[in-house]
Amino acid sequence: MKSSGATFFYMEKITVPTQIIDEAKCRTNIRNMFQKATNSGAVLRPHFKTHQALHTGRLFREEGIDRIAVSSVSMAAYFAADGWDDIMVAFPVNIREAAQINRLAQQIRLGILVSSPGVVPLLKEQITRQVDLYLKIDVGTHRTGFHPDDLKVIEKELLQIKDHELLHFKGFVAHAGHTYQALSREQIISISHEGVDTLKRLKVHFLGSFPDCVISWGDTPSCSIIPSFEGVDELRPGNFVYYDLMQRYLGACTPDDIAMVVAAPVVALHPEREEVVVYAGAVHLSKEQLVLPEGQTCYGMMVAMEENGRWHLLPQQVFVVRVSQEHGILKVPVSMMNDFAVGQLVGIIPVHACLAADLLKDHLRLV
Amino acid sequence: MKSSGATFFYMEKITVPTQIIDEAKCRTNIRNMFQKATNSGAVLRPHFKTHQALHTGRLFREEGIDRIAVSSVSMAAYFAADGWDDIMVAFPVNIREAAQINRLAQQIRLGILVSSPGVVPLLKEQITRQVDLYLKIDVGTHRTGFHPDDLKVIEKELLQIKDHELLHFKGFVAHAGHTYQALSREQIISISHEGVDTLKRLKVHFLGSFPDCVISWGDTPSCSIIPSFEGVDELRPGNFVYYDLMQRYLGACTPDDIAMVVAAPVVALHPEREEVVVYAGAVHLSKEQLVLPEGQTCYGMMVAMEENGRWHLLPQQVFVVRVSQEHGILKVPVSMMNDFAVGQLVGIIPVHACLAADLLKDHLRLV
Repeated sequence: MKSSGATFFYMEKITVPTQIIDEAKCRTNIRNMFQKATNSGAVLRPHFKTHQALHTGRLFREEGIDRIAVSSVSMAAYFAADGWDDIMVAFPVNIREAAQINRLAQQIRLGILVSSPGVVPLLKEQITRQVDLYLKIDVGTHRTGFHPDDLKVIEKELLQIKDHELLHFKGFVAHAGHTYQALSREQIISISHEGVDTLKRLKVHFLGSFPDCVISWGDTPSCSIIPSFEGVDELRPGNFVYYDLMQRYLGACTPDDIAMVVAAPVVALHPEREEVVVYAGAVHLSKEQLVLPEGQTCYGMMVAMEENGRWHLLPQQVFVVRVSQEHGILKVPVSMMNDFAVGQLVGIIPVHACLAADLLKDHLRLV
Repeated sequence: MKSSGATFFYMEKITVPTQIIDEAKCRTNIRNMFQKATNSGAVLRPHFKTHQALHTGRLFREEGIDRIAVSSVSMAAYFAADGWDDIMVAFPVNIREAAQINRLAQQIRLGILVSSPGVVPLLKEQITRQVDLYLKIDVGTHRTGFHPDDLKVIEKELLQIKDHELLHFKGFVAHAGHTYQALSREQIISISHEGVDTLKRLKVHFLGSFPDCVISWGDTPSCSIIPSFEGVDELRPGNFVYYDLMQRYLGACTPDDIAMVVAAPVVALHPEREEVVVYAGAVHLSKEQLVLPEGQTCYGMMVAMEENGRWHLLPQQVFVVRVSQEHGILKVPVSMMNDFAVGQLVGIIPVHACLAADLLKDHLRLV
């Protein structure tokens, strides 16, 4: 801690749990995904729910991306205020926010999602500005969306809005969230192929009535693993800009691709039980847990912080094995205990970057 | 939805996930705990990490409480700015915040916690204002703190600060967090008796050198269940002001005692799989999960919202069975599906009120 100058100062100023973003890694992740989308003939509409950060958003813009997805109307308003003018709220439309939707649709091109019957009549009553309307298709996640075989039901939805002056049908949207439960890379690939084929069939089925219909495909695991998405109009992954421990174990990234860690002060040492206590708990990392291949549940993995704010992997893996509201407990091999000191900063790769970024919105630094 | 006046308006204005606080229930919970502490001859120092809300804090003040615990230096600063002038930061002292601690200790009576060896020398170097110093004792949770049988180690810590002009030893603090893993009411009682006895023994042991030494005992399950705390100087529970689903299953409260719910808009209906999708996910409820006696994992329990912002229990229990970032999935008996409509508000009792309150700090309403 005796060095001087900017790099030393960088770490010195961090006193509380803080997300550290490696800008160069973000750019690489963005470029790789953009390249894949472009090579596939698809538009990249990255999901900004992952970072919720204006600066990270601007990295995308600098790389040439001009449309985004978000998961709430308030998030859409937040990014619209930073100049984004084509935003899809990729969440079942919340009709209680009709006034906010109308206000926003006055300023930008706004897309909304209909995920179950009974919603379109409410929109017809309450939406007073033109919006893009997407139908959410359930490709097997069973979270929400129309079943792709219920063609009659889907047709009924579309008939309600055909030629409507404000509700402009844009296409079908799917998020293969069940890739997160996949047990192998092969399973992620097969989930993705099946889901994409489902969307393609729907597009063909309705192309006569809706010749401009697009299909939009999401989820970082499949978008990272599948090499090409021919015939898909739009890719909508979000997490890939940072990646995280879950993605690493799903095989969607390598540890080196991960572009965000949480810097956490060490506050207590317990060599008697091979544990180190850090200031980084459920209100910083979230309670998202991951069961490691060895059966251990974890809430994050430690990396070593460098004085310039970058980080590197440890030769031995160290995990956050418990969290409470503000505490994180690292399980540390006895041979490493001497490497720790109260007051030092360690880095934690979160299990789920989106939730950690949400919790640490107000505590963000770039390297 | 055709009624008029204030009560109708109350719910009408809620468009996004919002914590609803029942002020009357809070007051009852505060009075009951205050009464128990007073009857036991103990001071009540409620833990404000649960609510992190100025208004809820003021309810305590109106009931006569004048000292509090918090779990971070920033939380201490937040409540100090609202007039609280005796605050314990009940978290292993984060030496990286020494400057903030010194600033705060200039304004108020500030307590800090030492939880492992090696910290006192850092404090002696960096603390420039008088603070109360507590030693954290591990009464079996094994999160942090000194082992109560390590009398030599504890004595060594105390010798370092005896007669120190700024570090004023105040007493021993314990938090029996392992009551949260207890399988029965009896187990909570036995954990509590054992832990309190441990603190009492320590106090007696060191009373010769530190005649003003106090013992401070926390955790809502034991403070709610044990009828009296004779010989304890201070009680430090936090969650009891709101209670939650976890406390209800631990037997620390009844469902009627719960003073906080999350109001959540219904956004999609899926009768085909007996599910209702609400706008209330991991970024509102947290990913804290509870395994119900029937073996089902849940993230919250539904209540019916009334137009005046109050709520009541349903005749049949309905749980949030899955959450993603913004989605919550309710499992709804088919017989109840017709009671749901897109756009309506339902209430969710969170599994862990502290984490939900942290997430919804900016979205709070009182009834």
